[in-house]
Amino acid sequence: MAKEKKVEQITDMEVDFAQWFTDVCTKAELVDYSGIKGCFIMRPYGYAIWENIQKILDGMFKRDGHENVSMPMLIPESLLQKEKDHVEGFAPECAWVTVGGSEELPERLCIRPTSETLFCDHWSHIVHSWRDLPMLYNQWCSVLRWEKTTRPFLRGREFLWQEGHTLHATEEEARAETLHQLEVYADVCENYLAMPVIRGNKTDKEKFAGAENTYTIECMMHDKKALQSGTSHFFGDGFARQFGITFTDKDNQQKYPMQTSWGMSTRIIGGIIMTHGDNNGLVLPPRIAPIQVVVVPVAQHKPGVTEKAQALFEAIQAAGIRAKIDLSDNSMGWKCAQYEMKGVPLRVELGPKDIENGVCMAVRRDNGEKISVKLEEIAQRLPELLDAVQQGLYEKAKRNLDEHTYVAHSLEEAKELQEKNGGFIKTMWCGDLQCELDMKEKAGMSSRCIPFKQEHLDDVCACCGKPAKTMIYWGVAY
Amino acid sequence: MAKEKKVEQITDMEVDFAQWFTDVCTKAELVDYSGIKGCFIMRPYGYAIWENIQKILDGMFKRDGHENVSMPMLIPESLLQKEKDHVEGFAPECAWVTVGGSEELPERLCIRPTSETLFCDHWSHIVHSWRDLPMLYNQWCSVLRWEKTTRPFLRGREFLWQEGHTLHATEEEARAETLHQLEVYADVCENYLAMPVIRGNKTDKEKFAGAENTYTIECMMHDKKALQSGTSHFFGDGFARQFGITFTDKDNQQKYPMQTSWGMSTRIIGGIIMTHGDNNGLVLPPRIAPIQVVVVPVAQHKPGVTEKAQALFEAIQAAGIRAKIDLSDNSMGWKCAQYEMKGVPLRVELGPKDIENGVCMAVRRDNGEKISVKLEEIAQRLPELLDAVQQGLYEKAKRNLDEHTYVAHSLEEAKELQEKNGGFIKTMWCGDLQCELDMKEKAGMSSRCIPFKQEHLDDVCACCGKPAKTMIYWGVAY
Repeated sequence: MAKEKKVEQITDMEVDFAQWFTDVCTKAELVDYSGIKGCFIMRPYGYAIWENIQKILDGMFKRDGHENVSMPMLIPESLLQKEKDHVEGFAPECAWVTVGGSEELPERLCIRPTSETLFCDHWSHIVHSWRDLPMLYNQWCSVLRWEKTTRPFLRGREFLWQEGHTLHATEEEARAETLHQLEVYADVCENYLAMPVIRGNKTDKEKFAGAENTYTIECMMHDKKALQSGTSHFFGDGFARQFGITFTDKDNQQKYPMQTSWGMSTRIIGGIIMTHGDNNGLVLPPRIAPIQVVVVPVAQHKPGVTEKAQALFEAIQAAGIRAKIDLSDNSMGWKCAQYEMKGVPLRVELGPKDIENGVCMAVRRDNGEKISVKLEEIAQRLPELLDAVQQGLYEKAKRNLDEHTYVAHSLEEAKELQEKNGGFIKTMWCGDLQCELDMKEKAGMSSRCIPFKQEHLDDVCACCGKPAKTMIYWGVAY
Repeated sequence: MAKEKKVEQITDMEVDFAQWFTDVCTKAELVDYSGIKGCFIMRPYGYAIWENIQKILDGMFKRDGHENVSMPMLIPESLLQKEKDHVEGFAPECAWVTVGGSEELPERLCIRPTSETLFCDHWSHIVHSWRDLPMLYNQWCSVLRWEKTTRPFLRGREFLWQEGHTLHATEEEARAETLHQLEVYADVCENYLAMPVIRGNKTDKEKFAGAENTYTIECMMHDKKALQSGTSHFFGDGFARQFGITFTDKDNQQKYPMQTSWGMSTRIIGGIIMTHGDNNGLVLPPRIAPIQVVVVPVAQHKPGVTEKAQALFEAIQAAGIRAKIDLSDNSMGWKCAQYEMKGVPLRVELGPKDIENGVCMAVRRDNGEKISVKLEEIAQRLPELLDAVQQGLYEKAKRNLDEHTYVAHSLEEAKELQEKNGGFIKTMWCGDLQCELDMKEKAGMSSRCIPFKQEHLDDVCACCGKPAKTMIYWGVAY
């Protein structure tokens, strides 16, 4: 007799989106809370998603000539202070080590909130000639930022990420690198995570501490809020000058190299949840799902069912699909709810009737569609169905983005649209900080980006009526 | 005209072994020093070795059903203190965070020196039934131990490692896991790193803080000192009791689960250096070498050489070998010295004469042997040669171990042998701590392990003359 295990319930997203999000994080067994606020435990299923994203990103970084390194996790306070804007941006949220062993340290050490200063210090030792350039480095690690309000994936005091750091002989090359890496992030988001993005420039107000330019990809969540999903920074030679990094160029002149950095973090898993999830739980894009197909036998106590299900499972694995079979004594209802909660893209059911007919039943997680698949065709049909789920998720997310992007010609109109619909509001902008502050204060929106794809919506700034310089996206952001 | 770049020189190991080691670490571009003592930078070439070892270990862990997770890097002081022996072992070498943002923290947080306490705290939330067991977890991360004397790879304040943590319903299963994981480490050392090992039990004095049993693999370095290369611990239910981890067993009784942990760290790279390196630099076992074959054209200015070398390089890559080609304008002498320093297992030279004869010249890093290889046979011959290097390195290391392992029947004899030859000294032992302390004080040796492969060397303890219980290995250790 099947054990009746309780099916976990989650809050409807329409009732309380924040609670729905937290429920998915815990009930899908992605995270657990630790004893320290904002320091989350990534459980095996959550970490496996991150490993899949890592594999894709790491492969792209290496394809483009980047090498992985490991820097210390501690930064002496004096080193952090070398670049003025950088320290102003990060010092207020650092965690400080003041005691080592049983001794008070002569200088406080901060746990890295980001590692520009460490890379620069290292480069100042090893870069001498144009032959040493470019330096194309990346690091996989965790960083700490002492945030006040925290949420799993979206805002942790500690979070996992990769931080790319590169150094180039020319500004042209460094700028090309910055833009290329943004394109890598956009590629991963759109083609692996099924998350459509808006690519653009951050305003001066929103750029990274110490950067000349910050590029961003912005995604829209189910609740129409924005998630900054990856950023890439051009530093010019600002850090190089402060850290004394110089090289002898081909023309025998001493020069300062040009620098970039770029990062994507476990925050993106929060983005996946809020882009694709539904009231039954997580919905994972097949390309990064730890389990792409789960085989669930129907009436497994009947003779032959378990064996046939096992054979089917093995055939699915042999087709190169990440698969699992559930032969436990939990009820069919519990199993279905459980794999829906975990967002497994396809559930494949096989019962005595199916075996008679030489078929199995594939159930799509994204839309509930049931498809009868001939057993001899699974090696071809299941990958096709996984592609269909991947494509379906992207299209649904793209519709959400397109249908909730609005044009406004005044601050009042922007405010009204945001209050009524949420979403992204496109307006023209004069480029002044004051208008950005006004939009924040009066309409509760921050600038998301000045998109690469510009449109001419109007001649004047929506906020102040002065001549417009660019089109800009506004939104409420995570 | 070839640029004459200076060939880096290193100290002979016979002159100053410690300096030789440091020279190899820096000149082979494995590490750089950071601004904090004992926190080393792993440069791309060093980190690539670690990535190769990671891939092998991670594959074995997953093959055996383990899952990766990510725990916080910070441990509240109160959590660390829950297990008495554990905190006594680790508290003296913790780094403490006392300030977060701009505020003094109400409780000090230590940067993890190891994560047993974090895993136990987590398990106390999620383990309820025998159905939840076993928990087979692993984590890749860095840990901090505030050591006084530090050396690259061998003893860092921060180092990278993996820490496996598992929880089982029965002692039998947990003990089997502990031993199995030791065997995994032995497999990696012997079959991938070409490092022969002695497997055994640590004495009570040398075991891990809080463990009931610690198993170890011990390797012998060039200088005849011992390197503990991987350890696996059985904890019994000691932590489970302190952390309140219980489960309902099949018989409906509440029980404490049994726990293990096991770790291997970047220290093993220090072991690779000191096992295989020579006075020309690093020597890498092919199975973990970032570059297995480097192609160096001879007289590359002559027409056709570069093109043929490039074609050869591509054919080698196509054969599934990690290869590199050096077409730089550095001199032949510099290139040869450089790839010897970096320990590349095979250098393949190709010049006009070779092209005429349809051959290339393969030079083995381990013994300098030059082998003429027909170009049409490289896909078969180079993998064979790489296997020969791998095998050659293992055999050389095994000879070093065998030839420098001695039997002693008294403390005086053990002391004399150690002073004269270094190496491992096998004796019988009564099992008393006092004899271990005597051996340390009088002969400068610590117990390395009570080997699984016991021999009967004598009836009595070499130190005190009382009846012997076991055979034991002594040595001077890193």
